[in-house]
Amino acid sequence: MNTFGVNFRLTTFGESHGPALGGIVDGMPPCIQLDMDSIQAMLDRRRTGRDILTSQRREEDIPEILSGVSPAGVTLGTPIGFIFRNRDARSGDYREVECHYRPNHADYAYERRYGIRDARGGGRSSARETVSRVMGGALALQALSHYYPDIEIQAKVTAVGRTGYPDVLRKLSEDVIHPELPDDEEVEMAMRNAVASAREDNDSVGGVVTCLVKGVPAGAGNPVFGKLHALLSAGVMSINAAKGFEYGLGHEMSFSRGSEVLDNFSPGFEPTVTGSNFSGGIQGGISNSMPIFFSVYFKPTPTIARSIPMPDRDGNVSEVCVKGRHDPCVALRAPVIVEAMTALVLADVLLPS
Amino acid sequence: MNTFGVNFRLTTFGESHGPALGGIVDGMPPCIQLDMDSIQAMLDRRRTGRDILTSQRREEDIPEILSGVSPAGVTLGTPIGFIFRNRDARSGDYREVECHYRPNHADYAYERRYGIRDARGGGRSSARETVSRVMGGALALQALSHYYPDIEIQAKVTAVGRTGYPDVLRKLSEDVIHPELPDDEEVEMAMRNAVASAREDNDSVGGVVTCLVKGVPAGAGNPVFGKLHALLSAGVMSINAAKGFEYGLGHEMSFSRGSEVLDNFSPGFEPTVTGSNFSGGIQGGISNSMPIFFSVYFKPTPTIARSIPMPDRDGNVSEVCVKGRHDPCVALRAPVIVEAMTALVLADVLLPS
Amino acid sequence: MNTFGVNFRLTTFGESHGPALGGIVDGMPPCIQLDMDSIQAMLDRRRTGRDILTSQRREEDIPEILSGVSPAGVTLGTPIGFIFRNRDARSGDYREVECHYRPNHADYAYERRYGIRDARGGGRSSARETVSRVMGGALALQALSHYYPDIEIQAKVTAVGRTGYPDVLRKLSEDVIHPELPDDEEVEMAMRNAVASAREDNDSVGGVVTCLVKGVPAGAGNPVFGKLHALLSAGVMSINAAKGFEYGLGHEMSFSRGSEVLDNFSPGFEPTVTGSNFSGGIQGGISNSMPIFFSVYFKPTPTIARSIPMPDRDGNVSEVCVKGRHDPCVALRAPVIVEAMTALVLADVLLPS
Amino acid sequence: MNTFGVNFRLTTFGESHGPALGGIVDGMPPCIQLDMDSIQAMLDRRRTGRDILTSQRREEDIPEILSGVSPAGVTLGTPIGFIFRNRDARSGDYREVECHYRPNHADYAYERRYGIRDARGGGRSSARETVSRVMGGALALQALSHYYPDIEIQAKVTAVGRTGYPDVLRKLSEDVIHPELPDDEEVEMAMRNAVASAREDNDSVGGVVTCLVKGVPAGAGNPVFGKLHALLSAGVMSINAAKGFEYGLGHEMSFSRGSEVLDNFSPGFEPTVTGSNFSGGIQGGISNSMPIFFSVYFKPTPTIARSIPMPDRDGNVSEVCVKGRHDPCVALRAPVIVEAMTALVLADVLLPS
Repeated sequence: MNTFGVNFRLTTFGESHGPALGGIVDGMPPCIQLDMDSIQAMLDRRRTGRDILTSQRREEDIPEILSGVSPAGVTLGTPIGFIFRNRDARSGDYREVECHYRPNHADYAYERRYGIRDARGGGRSSARETVSRVMGGALALQALSHYYPDIEIQAKVTAVGRTGYPDVLRKLSEDVIHPELPDDEEVEMAMRNAVASAREDNDSVGGVVTCLVKGVPAGAGNPVFGKLHALLSAGVMSINAAKGFEYGLGHEMSFSRGSEVLDNFSPGFEPTVTGSNFSGGIQGGISNSMPIFFSVYFKPTPTIARSIPMPDRDGNVSEVCVKGRHDPCVALRAPVIVEAMTALVLADVLLPS
Repeated sequence: MNTFGVNFRLTTFGESHGPALGGIVDGMPPCIQLDMDSIQAMLDRRRTGRDILTSQRREEDIPEILSGVSPAGVTLGTPIGFIFRNRDARSGDYREVECHYRPNHADYAYERRYGIRDARGGGRSSARETVSRVMGGALALQALSHYYPDIEIQAKVTAVGRTGYPDVLRKLSEDVIHPELPDDEEVEMAMRNAVASAREDNDSVGGVVTCLVKGVPAGAGNPVFGKLHALLSAGVMSINAAKGFEYGLGHEMSFSRGSEVLDNFSPGFEPTVTGSNFSGGIQGGISNSMPIFFSVYFKPTPTIARSIPMPDRDGNVSEVCVKGRHDPCVALRAPVIVEAMTALVLADVLLPS
Repeated sequence: MNTFGVNFRLTTFGESHGPALGGIVDGMPPCIQLDMDSIQAMLDRRRTGRDILTSQRREEDIPEILSGVSPAGVTLGTPIGFIFRNRDARSGDYREVECHYRPNHADYAYERRYGIRDARGGGRSSARETVSRVMGGALALQALSHYYPDIEIQAKVTAVGRTGYPDVLRKLSEDVIHPELPDDEEVEMAMRNAVASAREDNDSVGGVVTCLVKGVPAGAGNPVFGKLHALLSAGVMSINAAKGFEYGLGHEMSFSRGSEVLDNFSPGFEPTVTGSNFSGGIQGGISNSMPIFFSVYFKPTPTIARSIPMPDRDGNVSEVCVKGRHDPCVALRAPVIVEAMTALVLADVLLPS
Repeated sequence: MNTFGVNFRLTTFGESHGPALGGIVDGMPPCIQLDMDSIQAMLDRRRTGRDILTSQRREEDIPEILSGVSPAGVTLGTPIGFIFRNRDARSGDYREVECHYRPNHADYAYERRYGIRDARGGGRSSARETVSRVMGGALALQALSHYYPDIEIQAKVTAVGRTGYPDVLRKLSEDVIHPELPDDEEVEMAMRNAVASAREDNDSVGGVVTCLVKGVPAGAGNPVFGKLHALLSAGVMSINAAKGFEYGLGHEMSFSRGSEVLDNFSPGFEPTVTGSNFSGGIQGGISNSMPIFFSVYFKPTPTIARSIPMPDRDGNVSEVCVKGRHDPCVALRAPVIVEAMTALVLADVLLPS
C-alpha cells in the first residue's frame, strides 16, 4: 500500500528508472497561498544532501504540479497531483547485477514478494522514491504553517559511524528554555572525515539523524493505537535504511530509574509546562506543548564499491562489483526526508478535515 | 482512532475503571478451531507478568466471547466481539491525584486533548487497556498458526536498568543456525535484583524487551510506506511506556561500516538464505525468510511511591504521593503485549482477506 | 468488513442467536451530555416497528454501555462499547431449515462465502443485526444535535405494495417552504390493510421508506467519490432487503427534460436558496442547505409461511415451511434504521475529527 | 476524499481546465500482461459516448502510464500512475458564468464547501473527471479477467426520457438461461430521436443505464456494511448526475408480494442455481453466481442553451445563457463509466490482496 495518512494523505507512485515518479496529496485545505520557493528548497536539500557533504551534482528535481493549485499558487481544496520526470536514469550501471542478489538490498525479498524483479533498477525500493515524500511533506508543511505558524521542524545528522553528538537527546531533554540541535565545528568536521574515509576505503558508513519539532500545540495524538510517537515512528521507519527510532531521552530511559527522569510540571506552568523534557513532548501518546524530538538510526549504504560474492536465482555465486555512483552515507540525505515524514504526520493529526 | 490493522483489524474500547474493556476482531478467517487454552495462557502471562517477577495476584482475566465463534470453538468468519469485566477497580487509590497532573503520565496531555479528564482513573491510557490487545493478538496467532504452522513469536525482558544482555541483537544477527533469545541464570537474577532494589527504594526502573519471530515466509511486507518493520514499529511503539525500537542489529548499524554488516547470500541459499542476519530478516521492508528480531525500549513506570510536587489545573503545586499498587518495572509485563502486537501485524500482512 | 464510516465509525459484531450483539462507536466527540431517553426511544421504534402495525411484543432492547461515557452520561471522547444480550433466541424455529437453502435468503451465498453456515440461525444477515446500527445512529444523532441543533432526520413508510403516496418525492421537491412527509389517514389505513392482507394470505409484501433531513448546512460532502448522496446510498443500501435508492426527484429525473427540473437560485437566496428542490438538497455531491430527501425500496420479507421446495447442500429438494414468527413487511421496521444510517453518514461528514 | 476501494484502490486528481488529470491504481497484482487496446477502447467509448449518438469529435484521450508497468506491458505489482493532458480547455465558454450560480450545478455548494470557486471552469465536478475512473476501471477489468476469465461487464442506455425498455429488469430477472441487455432497432431509434429533439429545443433530457455482469463467482461481498450491492451503489451513485440505483427486480420488488418474487433454488442447482433471478445475483449482500444486474438513473444535463436567471454571490440576478458545447443527455456517455465503477468494485472484492 502506497498511501500515508488518513486525513491528510500522500499516495505515491514511480520506479527509479521508469518515465516519472509522483504522487497525490489528498486533504489539503483550500485557500492556502503556497510558497513555491520553500517547497523547492526542501526538494533541493534532498537532492544534494548538503547537510554535511555535497554529493555529485545532478539535474534539479522540479515538480510539475498538475492539479489542486490555482495559477496564482493558491490551493483549491482538491487533490494535488504532481510528477517528477526521470532524466538521469543510467540503468546501465546496474546491468551487471540484474540477475544477482545484492546483500542488504531488497532484490531477493522483492522478487519473492512480487514474483518479478523490476528490470529497470531499484524499482520502488530506490532512494529516488523519496522525492515524492519530500514533495508531500513540503506541501504538508505549507498547510501546517498556515494554521500553526509557530511550528518548526528541523532535522540534522548527529552521528556518522562512531563520530557525532552522543548526548544530543539528553541535552534536548534538559534544556527546556532554548533547545537547539547541536552545531559544533569540530564534531561536524569529524563527521565529514568519517564519510570521506569510508569513501576512500570503497566502503560506506551508518549515521543518525535527530529531529526537533517546536510549536506543536498540546493535545495532538490519540491515546491507544494512534499515539503521536507511534505515528512518527511508522513514518520515519518507512524511510529506506532506517533501523531504529527513539524519542525523548529514548533508550536511555530503559537504563534509568523513574526518579531520575521525572518531568515535573512547573508551578503555574511557567516558564515551560514541565521543568525537564525526558518525555520528548509526548505523554500518553499525546503532545503536551513541549518540544518534540527523536532520533532515527540509519544503516550504512548497502551498495559498496567492492567485489562481493552474490548468487543468482539458481544459487550460483559470482564475484560482482556494483560500480554505480552512490553516497557512502545514506544518512546524509535523510534529514529532509525525516522532516517531510514528520510534517506529514503532524498535518494528518492537526489539520481540519 | 482505536483500530489497528487493515485486513485483520482489532478495534478496542474500555476505560480502566469503567464496567468493562473489550474489542472486536474483524477479518478472522472462518473454519479455524480455536485453542482456548493457548489464548488464556497469553492473557495469564499479561496479568501476572511472570517473566521475571510475579506481581501481586489479581482476579483472572477471562474473556467473554460474544460472537464470531461457534459453541464448539470454530471461527465463523464474522467479527469476534469479546469483553473483560472490570472487577478490581480500586479507583479510590487514585482519588488524591484527581486534580493534580502526575509527571510522565498522560493526565495533562489527555485533558488538553479531550477537554475532560476521566474521573475514573487512568482512562484509556491505563495499562489495563492492553488486555484487549493481548486477546486480539492471541486470536491473530491462532489464525497465523492455522496458515503458517512454522511461525513462532517469542519475546522476553533482556534488560532492566543497567543489567541484562547487552549484545542480544548481535548474537541473533550472527547465529543464523539456531538463533535463540538468551537465558542465563546469573543475568536473570541480576535483573530480578534490579527490580527488587527499585521497589525497595520506592522507585521504578526501565527495561528492554526483545522479540524473536521464526517461520515468516519470504515476501511479507510492502516496499514503501507499508514496510514490515515500519508496521512492527507502529505496533510496538503504541504500547504504553515504549520509548524506542530497533530491528536487526539496530542502532549498532549506525556506528558500523557497510563492509562489516553485509548479509551475503549463501551459495545455493543453504543452509540459510543469508550467512548472517544483520538485516533482521527484513530487506527493503519485505521479509526474506530469515528470523525477524527487534528490541523495544520501555521507560520506568512513571508512578513512583514518593511525594512529588504536582500542580493542579490552576497551576498550584502540592506534594502528592500516589500510593496505588504498581509494578516498578513496566517492561516486565510487556513481552506478551509485544508478542500480541507482532501477531496482529503479521496476521494483517499474511492472512487471506 | 464490519465498520461504517471514516471519522465517526461504527463497528458491529454479533450473530442473531449467539450470546450478544454489540458494537463500538469511535470518533464520538467528548463532553456531550447524552439523552438516554432519546436513544432508547429509537431502539424501541426498531423493536416494535410501530410506524404502521405493532408486531408481537418482545423483550426490550436495552443497551449496556461499557465505556466512553461517564456515570453522569457525558461522553469522554473515547470509544463507546455497547452490547445487547440475546434473550429471545428461539433457534428451534429455524431448525428445520438448517440444511435447506431458503429462497431469497443469504443461506446459499453465505455458505459459499465462508465455507460454513452459522448453525445458530440467520447469523450476521439477520434483521436483529440492525439493533447495533440503531444504537450507533442514535449516538451519532446525539453528537449531530450538539453541533447542529437544527438537524432533523425523519423517515416513514410511504408505500406498502401498490398502496401509498406515489408522488411523495415530487411534493418534497416542490414545497420548499414547509416540506413534510405526508400523513393521510386514508392512505395510512390502506397501507395497514395491505400488510394485514399479506399476513392473512401467509404471504409478505414490499414497501418504500422515505426520509427527510432538514438543517444540514451547505458544504457537506465531497465532489468525487465521497458525494453525499453516494455515502447515503451506501448506508441505506446496506440495510437488509433494500433493493433501490433515489434522492431528490429521483427516477423521475430520468424521464424529464432539463428545463422541467431546474432548481433556479432565488434572488437574494430568499426565502430559500433555490425556488424548487428537484436536486434534493445536494448538488455536485455537496449539500446546498436545502432539505435532503430520498426513498429506499425494500423487497417483501423473504420468509413466508408456506411450504416451499428447497434443496439441501446436495441439491435434493424437499417442501419446507418456515414457521418462525415474522413481519410480513420488512419495510415497517426500516424507518428508524434508515434514520440511523443517515445520522451515521452525516456524523461522519460533519463532525470535527 | 478522492480514493475508491480498499484493496484495489483508485485515487484521482485533476480539474477540467488545469494542466492534466490522472490517478494512481494501487493494489494491481504483478505479472499481468495488459491489453492496451482494450484499455484504449474503453477510453474511446467514454470520449465519444457512441452508444447512441456520437457527439462532436475531440482529441483522443490517450493515457501516459508513468509507473507500475514494464516496457513490455506487464504489471510490476507497484502502483500504476497515469495522466491525461488537457488540450481542449476552452474555459472561455464558461467565463460569463464565472460569478453566477448555475441551476443544478455544483457551483454554489462547491463554493460553500471550499470557500473558493475554481476559476478554471467546472473544477473537480466536471464530467471530464471521469476519464481517470474509466482508466482505473479498465485496469481493474484487466486484473479481473486474469483471475476470472468468465467475468463480463456490459452496460447500455435503456431509457432516454420517456422512451426505452421499461421492463428491462423484469426480463433479466426471468430469463436465467440467456440473459442479455435488450437491443431493439425501433426502441434505439426512439431514444436517438428523444435526444435529437431535446437538442433542437435547446433542452436536455434524462436517461437510464442498465448494467449486466456475468461470471462473478458465488461468495463475493460481505454480509453487513460491505454488501456487494451497497458497494456497487456507492460506486455508480458517485458518477455525476446519478439520481437513483436499483438492482435485481429493483423498485418493483417493493410493489410485489413475497410469493411473486421468490427465487427458488433449482433441484441439483441445474441448469442455474436458482430458477429465477429477482434477487439480481446477490443475496444477503453476497453474490450467488447468478448474473448481477442493476439500473442507474441519470438526470438531464443541467447545462441547457437557454437564458436562465442566475444570481451572483451577492444574490443579484441576471439572465445568463451558457453557450458551451454539451451533450443534451448525460446518460449517453455513462455506460462505460458504470462499467468502470463496476469493475473497480469487483476488483476490490475479488482480487487477492
